[in-house]
Amino acid sequence: MSENKSAQPKVTLHWLNQSRAQRIVWLLEELNLDYDIECHIRNSAMLAPEGSQSLHPLGKFPIVVVGDRVLAESGFIIEYFVDKFGPQLKPSDEDSLLRYKYFLHYAEGSLMPPMLVGIVVENINKASVPFFIKPLINMITGGVETRFLKPNYKTHFDFLEAELSSRPYLAGEEFSGADIMISFQLAAAKRVCGLSKEEYPKLFEYMERCESREACKRAYKKTKEMEAAGTKL
Amino acid sequence: MSENKSAQPKVTLHWLNQSRAQRIVWLLEELNLDYDIECHIRNSAMLAPEGSQSLHPLGKFPIVVVGDRVLAESGFIIEYFVDKFGPQLKPSDEDSLLRYKYFLHYAEGSLMPPMLVGIVVENINKASVPFFIKPLINMITGGVETRFLKPNYKTHFDFLEAELSSRPYLAGEEFSGADIMISFQLAAAKRVCGLSKEEYPKLFEYMERCESREACKRAYKKTKEMEAAGTKL
Repeated sequence: MSENKSAQPKVTLHWLNQSRAQRIVWLLEELNLDYDIECHIRNSAMLAPEGSQSLHPLGKFPIVVVGDRVLAESGFIIEYFVDKFGPQLKPSDEDSLLRYKYFLHYAEGSLMPPMLVGIVVENINKASVPFFIKPLINMITGGVETRFLKPNYKTHFDFLEAELSSRPYLAGEEFSGADIMISFQLAAAKRVCGLSKEEYPKLFEYMERCESREACKRAYKKTKEMEAAGTKL
Repeated sequence: MSENKSAQPKVTLHWLNQSRAQRIVWLLEELNLDYDIECHIRNSAMLAPEGSQSLHPLGKFPIVVVGDRVLAESGFIIEYFVDKFGPQLKPSDEDSLLRYKYFLHYAEGSLMPPMLVGIVVENINKASVPFFIKPLINMITGGVETRFLKPNYKTHFDFLEAELSSRPYLAGEEFSGADIMISFQLAAAKRVCGLSKEEYPKLFEYMERCESREACKRAYKKTKEMEAAGTKL
């Protein structure tokens, strides 16, 4: 049993399938902490189930209960757990430490916004309208895609490819909490932004390097099982 | 002259009008640091001027150069300066400190995304299309507004109103970097999300409390002058 476990308060992760909560399972596995998971499954409209606002006023996942504290916001949750229980996930040299802190903010603060706009545009494109209107809708949303989304995606992926060409992990030589933080956005980027291995080989090698960690594999297995069980309910 | 000034490296803030850089002027004024401002003015399409990617690969503002470091990402910049030069803007008791860290992530990570979707929808509504198409466009974007935007705004503003009913500042009894961090979103919320004093009196009292600080007034005056000079060029 690790040293962490004897001193730790009770930890409960409220997990929602296909959400940012996935990275917190990975984090807790990396830290080798004892924790319970409360499993929440999206409804047929892909929304979080009713009642999640009783857990935290925003009703967004992940939510983590540590002792009598209720924590929300992925970047903050990662920072909190790394500071309390995971010095091995936080760099010690100043350059890497500053990059670690920068990327904890970057993932949601800069990389996510254009991806979110991309998802909204995709939904507007899919909206049910008379067939003769469709080309006009596509013309408008296509403008957003050409003028805003594609250049933004390219800027971000070029930036990350360059960063990961000079070191193996986001912050530096070692894997850190920042790599867990960005995993949600990168997984989504492959799915919705056309992020490809041919164009961004270093970024793909990096993702494979992170995903090959035992803690990541355990997290993936655990949540696959929960999702399968939950969606059978 | 403050103690900070003798020990500080050279600080240059790259400021863009009508951007998140406004809060960094306020931060630097609060910290009473010596700094230079490089003033960048949006072009007629409201975009940052050409060449901003030579300052930082993402080409987004604020960008701060401290000695030979180039810093980006508002949450990280605030954290960096407060840690190095502004202990007075960081709470010391644990509850307040955790709230400070939470809100540094919350402003861009949770509060901003629905507001960004609101801005995109507004732009789609304004797009120039044949008049007989307009109602259909409005029907689709109206759906986003009713089902997604309005409930999201309400959740966030209710949350903030409740938080600010139990203490004067976001983190606790004292003003902190988190109050500077959220100022950009709250100013935008008044303009684009219909945030009103009648519905959210505590939130408005709080904004007035923050804006009445001398450092905030100095930042506002300084940037008003730059904007006026810049747009006359």
